[in-house]
Amino acid sequence: MSETLELASALIARRSVTPLDAGCQQLLADRLQPLGFDCDRLDYGDVSNLWARRGRAGPVFCFAGHTDVVPPGPEAQWRHPPFQPVVEDGLLYGRGAADMKGSVAAFVTALERYLADGHQPRGDIALLITSDEEGPAVDGTRRVIETLSQRDERIDWCLVGEPSSTERVGDVVKVGRRGSLNGRLTVRGDQGHVAYPHLARNPVHLALAALDTLQATRWDEGNDHFPPTSFQISNINAGTGATNVIPGELEVLFNFRFSTEVTAEQLQQRVAAVLDDHNLDWAIDWSLSGEPFLTAEGDLVAATQAAVQRVCGEPPVLSTSGGTSDGRFIAPTGAQVLELGPVNATIHKVNEHVRAADLDRLSAIYEQMLRELLG
Amino acid sequence: MSETLELASALIARRSVTPLDAGCQQLLADRLQPLGFDCDRLDYGDVSNLWARRGRAGPVFCFAGHTDVVPPGPEAQWRHPPFQPVVEDGLLYGRGAADMKGSVAAFVTALERYLADGHQPRGDIALLITSDEEGPAVDGTRRVIETLSQRDERIDWCLVGEPSSTERVGDVVKVGRRGSLNGRLTVRGDQGHVAYPHLARNPVHLALAALDTLQATRWDEGNDHFPPTSFQISNINAGTGATNVIPGELEVLFNFRFSTEVTAEQLQQRVAAVLDDHNLDWAIDWSLSGEPFLTAEGDLVAATQAAVQRVCGEPPVLSTSGGTSDGRFIAPTGAQVLELGPVNATIHKVNEHVRAADLDRLSAIYEQMLRELLG
Repeated sequence: MSETLELASALIARRSVTPLDAGCQQLLADRLQPLGFDCDRLDYGDVSNLWARRGRAGPVFCFAGHTDVVPPGPEAQWRHPPFQPVVEDGLLYGRGAADMKGSVAAFVTALERYLADGHQPRGDIALLITSDEEGPAVDGTRRVIETLSQRDERIDWCLVGEPSSTERVGDVVKVGRRGSLNGRLTVRGDQGHVAYPHLARNPVHLALAALDTLQATRWDEGNDHFPPTSFQISNINAGTGATNVIPGELEVLFNFRFSTEVTAEQLQQRVAAVLDDHNLDWAIDWSLSGEPFLTAEGDLVAATQAAVQRVCGEPPVLSTSGGTSDGRFIAPTGAQVLELGPVNATIHKVNEHVRAADLDRLSAIYEQMLRELLG
Repeated sequence: MSETLELASALIARRSVTPLDAGCQQLLADRLQPLGFDCDRLDYGDVSNLWARRGRAGPVFCFAGHTDVVPPGPEAQWRHPPFQPVVEDGLLYGRGAADMKGSVAAFVTALERYLADGHQPRGDIALLITSDEEGPAVDGTRRVIETLSQRDERIDWCLVGEPSSTERVGDVVKVGRRGSLNGRLTVRGDQGHVAYPHLARNPVHLALAALDTLQATRWDEGNDHFPPTSFQISNINAGTGATNVIPGELEVLFNFRFSTEVTAEQLQQRVAAVLDDHNLDWAIDWSLSGEPFLTAEGDLVAATQAAVQRVCGEPPVLSTSGGTSDGRFIAPTGAQVLELGPVNATIHKVNEHVRAADLDRLSAIYEQMLRELLG
């Protein structure tokens, strides 16, 4: 069994459902300290964070990731207990195998090989590991980045180990993510009895045309790196269950995934204009989950392309699709941010697994990236 | 204190929240038996019903009403405890004072005066009293009417004592009610992640235009007796609360209050056509609460108009507005059905009350109606 597979298995065996870390970060620190890393525990609330840094001169290359995992779901449906790592037919099974204890193990083994025999890189190396990526993501990477900023520590290049690959390891590298903007819309009417509609104002009736306009709006055309901005209603609620009462209020939760062709402020203004056009009595609580970010070119992209080409024989596809990741908290500091990790086909599912050989290959890619960037 | 006020107070003092009767019907039977009524208890499930009939020759004049009341709501907000009748400044306070223990008391005292000294009416007199008018209304009037129909007993004229009056007693008589048709619409889509809208079909987005068409549709123009049919959405729900999930299903509860210009079947067909026009994957559970009914003319209307004119000095306005009542179960048997009762301003509210003098006046109107119809 390879070193990467062994370490991944040791991490999977720790039941670190968000926000628990269950000793994973201590295991990592124990491996990093002998390599010259200063290991700083930056715990906030019930969230464990590890900031490990080697060198004080800069520039800083950082591996970012998380030790927490989503709950296993119905354990009886798993082939093997979710927190008992098992290799079967070349596949490593266990919760977190793909998202993302495999990548975290590959970070460490790549560093161990790269730094062997006293090799001195041309720059610093860091790891930013949290136990709250799958949860509220408030006391995790976001808080660590705030702390680093207060200390004037900055990251130049960041490789997030999220499972970016779709069919084989290294086939897709994420070079950015769309922004995510949530709105909680309230449309007010006047409650009443359905038998006396002239004495009430039904907020559902009043809002339907405006909501239809919003769902049909083309917000932008996207660009070379981003698909068009999309608007989705995730929840709509009005009424108390009673069939004879006209509700007084309608609540709608919606989400924008937006490209770099539009800003959150512009989207807010355009939604407001539609609601005003329909003369609605409305209010929206906005919450910006993340600005879009893009690392379309630069040393990090070049190093990653070269490393994937060398290890896998083919260059990766550069993509910005998919959900948010903690990269959204790191990119605004000015860092170049990419995401590269294992195949994501089974993440968050029962029987999560990763090809055992993929973890070794991933570790080889990470090692090669270090060589490309830091010599 | 008048006899009507005393009896109304005795009924209010019985805490008969639906489906409880709390001894009210026994109190009524004890007053009716000396007048020659056969009192039949037709209880179904936890619902108490009283069918009292005097005479076996026909035609049958029936007073219809209920002894149950809606819950008092926050008792601390009442001026007086809701089940302690109090007369203050000429107003009788208590849950049920207006809806409709006052009317029920007026039925009885009107009969006591009308039948005094051995007066023999030209026809039979009945009372149909239930303890489930404010609730599901399944085991109450509906079941009694079924039983009467099996026994070949029929009602020719029915006066429902629901609080029809708006500003002074007798100003409005309800000569019919709109029909009420409920629909529970389900629109199916495909659940998914908001970051991958192309892999999902959002049932909210798909349904908005169709729902907007339904709310804007003019179903008919009404007629001399009925306002135009109205459509109201009472509840709309989709989503699990999560802001990153496109819901798989949308549920909408709606209600038609419909005139005699359209049938329930026609409304169902027209709704189906709109949903099909928008290519929706939909299903509707329909539930018909009541067909519209109308007693626009005839002996009962004439007798009521004459009685109100004589007691109040002005004729009543004939109206079909407002919510459903148990009249919907009686009218389909072919009976002429009217509703005439106290002022409805405080029904179902905290501090429900009725003018004490109005109950005496109401009793006088009922007595005069008996004289007009039965001599």
